[in-house]
Amino acid sequence: MKIYRGNIVYSLSIKELVELSRGYIAVNDGKVVGTYQNLPEEYKDLEIIDYGECLIIPSFTDLHVHAPQYPNRGIAMDLLLSDWLNEYTFKLEAKYKDQEFARKVYAAFVDDLIKHGTMHASIFATIHNEATDILVDCLEEKGIPSFVGKVNMDKDSPSFLVETTEESLKDTERFLKKHQGNKYAKPILTPRFAPTCSFELLKKLGELADKYDVGTQTHIVESLWEKEEAKKCFEGCRCDMQIYKDAGLLKHKPFIAAHFIYPSEEDIALLKECDGYAVTCPDATTNVIAGIMQTGKLMDLGMNLAIGSDISAGSYMGIYRQVASAVRLSKIKNLYENDNRVITAKEAFYVATKGPGSLFGKVGSFEEGYDFDALIIDGLQDDFRNISPAELMERFCYSGDVSNIKKRFLRGKEIGC
Amino acid sequence: MKIYRGNIVYSLSIKELVELSRGYIAVNDGKVVGTYQNLPEEYKDLEIIDYGECLIIPSFTDLHVHAPQYPNRGIAMDLLLSDWLNEYTFKLEAKYKDQEFARKVYAAFVDDLIKHGTMHASIFATIHNEATDILVDCLEEKGIPSFVGKVNMDKDSPSFLVETTEESLKDTERFLKKHQGNKYAKPILTPRFAPTCSFELLKKLGELADKYDVGTQTHIVESLWEKEEAKKCFEGCRCDMQIYKDAGLLKHKPFIAAHFIYPSEEDIALLKECDGYAVTCPDATTNVIAGIMQTGKLMDLGMNLAIGSDISAGSYMGIYRQVASAVRLSKIKNLYENDNRVITAKEAFYVATKGPGSLFGKVGSFEEGYDFDALIIDGLQDDFRNISPAELMERFCYSGDVSNIKKRFLRGKEIGC
Repeated sequence: MKIYRGNIVYSLSIKELVELSRGYIAVNDGKVVGTYQNLPEEYKDLEIIDYGECLIIPSFTDLHVHAPQYPNRGIAMDLLLSDWLNEYTFKLEAKYKDQEFARKVYAAFVDDLIKHGTMHASIFATIHNEATDILVDCLEEKGIPSFVGKVNMDKDSPSFLVETTEESLKDTERFLKKHQGNKYAKPILTPRFAPTCSFELLKKLGELADKYDVGTQTHIVESLWEKEEAKKCFEGCRCDMQIYKDAGLLKHKPFIAAHFIYPSEEDIALLKECDGYAVTCPDATTNVIAGIMQTGKLMDLGMNLAIGSDISAGSYMGIYRQVASAVRLSKIKNLYENDNRVITAKEAFYVATKGPGSLFGKVGSFEEGYDFDALIIDGLQDDFRNISPAELMERFCYSGDVSNIKKRFLRGKEIGC
Repeated sequence: MKIYRGNIVYSLSIKELVELSRGYIAVNDGKVVGTYQNLPEEYKDLEIIDYGECLIIPSFTDLHVHAPQYPNRGIAMDLLLSDWLNEYTFKLEAKYKDQEFARKVYAAFVDDLIKHGTMHASIFATIHNEATDILVDCLEEKGIPSFVGKVNMDKDSPSFLVETTEESLKDTERFLKKHQGNKYAKPILTPRFAPTCSFELLKKLGELADKYDVGTQTHIVESLWEKEEAKKCFEGCRCDMQIYKDAGLLKHKPFIAAHFIYPSEEDIALLKECDGYAVTCPDATTNVIAGIMQTGKLMDLGMNLAIGSDISAGSYMGIYRQVASAVRLSKIKNLYENDNRVITAKEAFYVATKGPGSLFGKVGSFEEGYDFDALIIDGLQDDFRNISPAELMERFCYSGDVSNIKKRFLRGKEIGC
């Protein structure tokens, strides 16, 4: 049993945030036993690891990130989407046929993820078999609870980054078989997005979903172009989500819908029906000028939301900074389109921690029985005013840096990076 | 004479960026003698201070920041403007009648400014005499070239944060007299904004501008509310800039127009005529949902632009992060209003360095004769791809942190913080 002390903040629900000023967390065998404003009598003789005025928060979940795009982070960000894809992204992804390259990048990517306090993630790899195995191994080795997908793309893709339908299915089944028993890094189906997948491919992926009981991650109505293109590509298609439903891909959890910027009422109904997650990637969708998710509206409809760094359309690994950006973008969307409501920092924090954490077990909160996946945040306090733990959390998201993360815990153990 | 080596990036103009991969900078007596791809023969025997693959860039200029709001950075960011002003900002500013409080905050503020690589700034203080002197002293002591303003507000302000017209003028003249001979931190007139200043006050400030040859900083068309309110407050007023022209405040340089989000054609013409600066504060104007400046359009009209952190409507001290945000916001504005063009990272970098640097002497570039005000940036290189110095600069702005700033030089001397 270990007792940690500091300014503790965690979510109970999207509306309820717990904050304990100089409170205590009891941790046993990597799991939270309880949090207390006053230390219970029975723990009085235990050693207290006291982090003073530091903030103690759950580590973050990144529900949409492209690991292979890591070498392009923060580059070519002033391009528009098509140039960015064709000149930078696709060319880089093609390089992952080289396993040495993959090994080097993926090891650095996983370290940087941990460095920025992200300890649960849903990750796109590339179409490549061996490279994707390497990414899974890196995550498994570090013990990061995650979903990883070998990407499927069998049409309308560059000649150097495309598979036949047959290859794509064979490689995907191999990938599912190989990793289905993994402890931490689990496989997920990852059709890139509707325009680069034939319906035959999607339908057969649906059969694999049944056979191996795996979920799906993809990009859903991420841009106006994609939304229209999907309708053109699939005969009789009314909306993006319907394609995945028709392919049988909504039956197994999780269904992770990255971006979800331009959903129809039917898209929303279908995502809700399958208990799926809409993932907002604030910096990414403004960097490549796709648009802004109606976060407030979707929350009010009771949808599951999450946040993604979306490297390298997104440019910063830390999800905390995206918490701030999500609040900002909800304001901008409200200003220009009046079809959203402004979300709060408290709501955005839940969406970055406990909300999507539930996909990875009991993670993302400090309630009893939750994994002690935690960050110790320092350097943001001052004595100019009384600052509450919740305000300190907000300041970390808005004004903080990776250098403010002093320690990281994964299942109760300190983890380096 | 000192020779520094690394990946060098600096602006010549808004369209021209110099990048030298593993190039050299010769510095003598704190000033740049020249930059070279190959070291000239005559310097061959000098010691070379080699920063390897580090990036070497000019330090940044923050042309709009409220030093007294520093204790509120990153707090209450999900509020809307009026609540944020009334519940947080005005109450905090009122505390600067306490000189001890001012001393503590302003020392920390100046250190944090330097820590984030900002070495030239135009700064709002509060209405308070002594506290504003303390801020000037802190900047003068560190040698930060800056403009500092004692704020004027004689109407429509909270009862605990307002002056009479007479007091305001008397204190302002005292402030100008006391600091007019300063070496680094120079006084500037700082009427808060049109709605909190009587025309009598502004006109008499215009007389002080003539008497002491000082410029003015204020908020111009910063929100739709402010734009309309200004017209209501001043009889016969067509636009914000006209008020300042009528008051005689456009005759002395610089004229610094923070935000400038909703200018009329006349506002634009008047700002151009007086060679003034339009300061975009990307995070701030989205945090408090004011709107987005037409950066691209104003650039194309040949206007002077600059960037402000606008702490604490803005939440992050580092101007580099605002470079990224300015590019992003130009894209969002283009998406929603189609009344702007997308700006490039290169343009935004100029606007954060050489552009407004010219207000403080020869700073913000590494051309011959410029002060060697420089930042050494590390930790963003990798060997996954060839990355050019300009790309490294972009990555610092988008993906970097204060922890990437390894060293800071001010007029050739390393400066701690």
